[in-house]
Amino acid sequence: MNTLAAPNTFAGGGLDRHSETRRDASWVAAQWARPGARVLTMRGGDPAMDGGRLALAPVNLAPLPESEAPGPAPGGQNGMPLFLGFDATGPVFAVEARENGPGAFADLRSVAGALTPAEASMAATARALFGWHARHGFCPSCGASTSVTDAGWKRSCPSCGADHFPRTDPVVIMLALHGERCLLGRNASWPEGRYSALAGFLEPGESVEDACARELKEESGLTAMRVRYHSSQPWPLSPLGGQLMIGLFAEVGDDRAQADGTELSDVRWLTRKDASAALAGTHPEVTAPPAMAIAHQLIRAWLEE
Amino acid sequence: MNTLAAPNTFAGGGLDRHSETRRDASWVAAQWARPGARVLTMRGGDPAMDGGRLALAPVNLAPLPESEAPGPAPGGQNGMPLFLGFDATGPVFAVEARENGPGAFADLRSVAGALTPAEASMAATARALFGWHARHGFCPSCGASTSVTDAGWKRSCPSCGADHFPRTDPVVIMLALHGERCLLGRNASWPEGRYSALAGFLEPGESVEDACARELKEESGLTAMRVRYHSSQPWPLSPLGGQLMIGLFAEVGDDRAQADGTELSDVRWLTRKDASAALAGTHPEVTAPPAMAIAHQLIRAWLEE
Repeated sequence: MNTLAAPNTFAGGGLDRHSETRRDASWVAAQWARPGARVLTMRGGDPAMDGGRLALAPVNLAPLPESEAPGPAPGGQNGMPLFLGFDATGPVFAVEARENGPGAFADLRSVAGALTPAEASMAATARALFGWHARHGFCPSCGASTSVTDAGWKRSCPSCGADHFPRTDPVVIMLALHGERCLLGRNASWPEGRYSALAGFLEPGESVEDACARELKEESGLTAMRVRYHSSQPWPLSPLGGQLMIGLFAEVGDDRAQADGTELSDVRWLTRKDASAALAGTHPEVTAPPAMAIAHQLIRAWLEE
Repeated sequence: MNTLAAPNTFAGGGLDRHSETRRDASWVAAQWARPGARVLTMRGGDPAMDGGRLALAPVNLAPLPESEAPGPAPGGQNGMPLFLGFDATGPVFAVEARENGPGAFADLRSVAGALTPAEASMAATARALFGWHARHGFCPSCGASTSVTDAGWKRSCPSCGADHFPRTDPVVIMLALHGERCLLGRNASWPEGRYSALAGFLEPGESVEDACARELKEESGLTAMRVRYHSSQPWPLSPLGGQLMIGLFAEVGDDRAQADGTELSDVRWLTRKDASAALAGTHPEVTAPPAMAIAHQLIRAWLEE
């Protein structure tokens, strides 16, 4: 699965982000002032909705950005509108609503699967960026309060001069394969019967393949013999911050898998028939991850191989 | 190229990092005290060397960790030894030398290609971690000074309680392909004649494929029709911090490439013959990236397809 038309939720939105041009504040201001400019309001990481679609309000109906309120809020996003990019219609910005502000907001996890790729991409980007701002108000190099620049895509430290860019953590997520079976695992904290692909954060000094082999060994005791990339997915829903899910198949040398007892409370080999039933929701014991999760797409792709 | 035996420098070191167990300070102390424990000294990101090999000194000959000096150094790595993991021989730690401390250190970029995969992995991991500590002494959430925990793999904030983990930035690097030619570009700041694959940071809300398409469009005007993953590489040499290089092939719809004039000053299509000469160092105008760069491996893999 190596095309641009990935089935992964949040991927393939096709926004034109103007990553270079958005550094120019006067260009950004001109986009904000365009008649067709629209704005997405987010609250606590969830998007404003209108009739099942993302509510993209004309900028002239949008609440005034808080940057017009006196003084920047130290450590916050400063209320500056975030430039998301151009969709097929024109420029789109995002702003954050106050915690108890009015509006109809929907849990992004619940609605993402029903959004268009462009909508899902906008909401994912806004959630990842606002979450990063909320956790990165201070300069990690010197401890001073930083301020937002580059239309929401950078924080600058007025004290030591350091620039800080949004953080995205790479995560490897792998479907271990042995013969005609795939391995799923479950965390004790998950709802009963829920199983998914094994996963973990990539660490400094590791390639994708290294991280896959390490996580597989740590969590299940299995040795990866061959790692194949399948696809990737931006994942804005973790409370730890924005992640890049890197979806892999890992062929392993034997089937002696054992849950580590810390990350995983159980691991389980599924035949193609079992996996198919789990995806369809008809397996008596195993619930597969939902279609919006890349783990679901990995299982589906393996079944279709 | 999807095996674990990647030719990419810094990848495939095979260290057993004990990512779970290293959180236990008494376990880590027991490894430090083992007769076979060794320590790598780094200075400014460069490893201590001994006769062309990484100098892995017995712990009992290593300088005392600075953590035994009175009080932690705010904002620094606190001198606590970093647990790298087990190689085939036993546990390996890394410590940082004082700026003008004694010892024979080698520029990591210059020597990495001659190290074994395990040695390169140790040096890359130590450089990425120490660099992260140097830039992350303060809590980005509240501005307080943080301290090192988990054998060097975490910083904790005594003020707000936030935990911070080492940062690795995903970077997409792509060889654009059209018919029997590949595209290389050059930055005006590079040595004359040096060309490489196009590359850029992945942004929040993007998949690998999205980021590849955006960077290609921004830097060269080309439209990616199909993106194929090749391999990945941990890259500790950027002054911006540890990166994960994600190497890709991008088939494009036409050959009307144009350098953006900001990131790139020139782009150039190379036939297989040209590319082969560039790799061999015999092209009259184009110098290819060195073998330690994933761009080199992408070109080589394309030639061998």
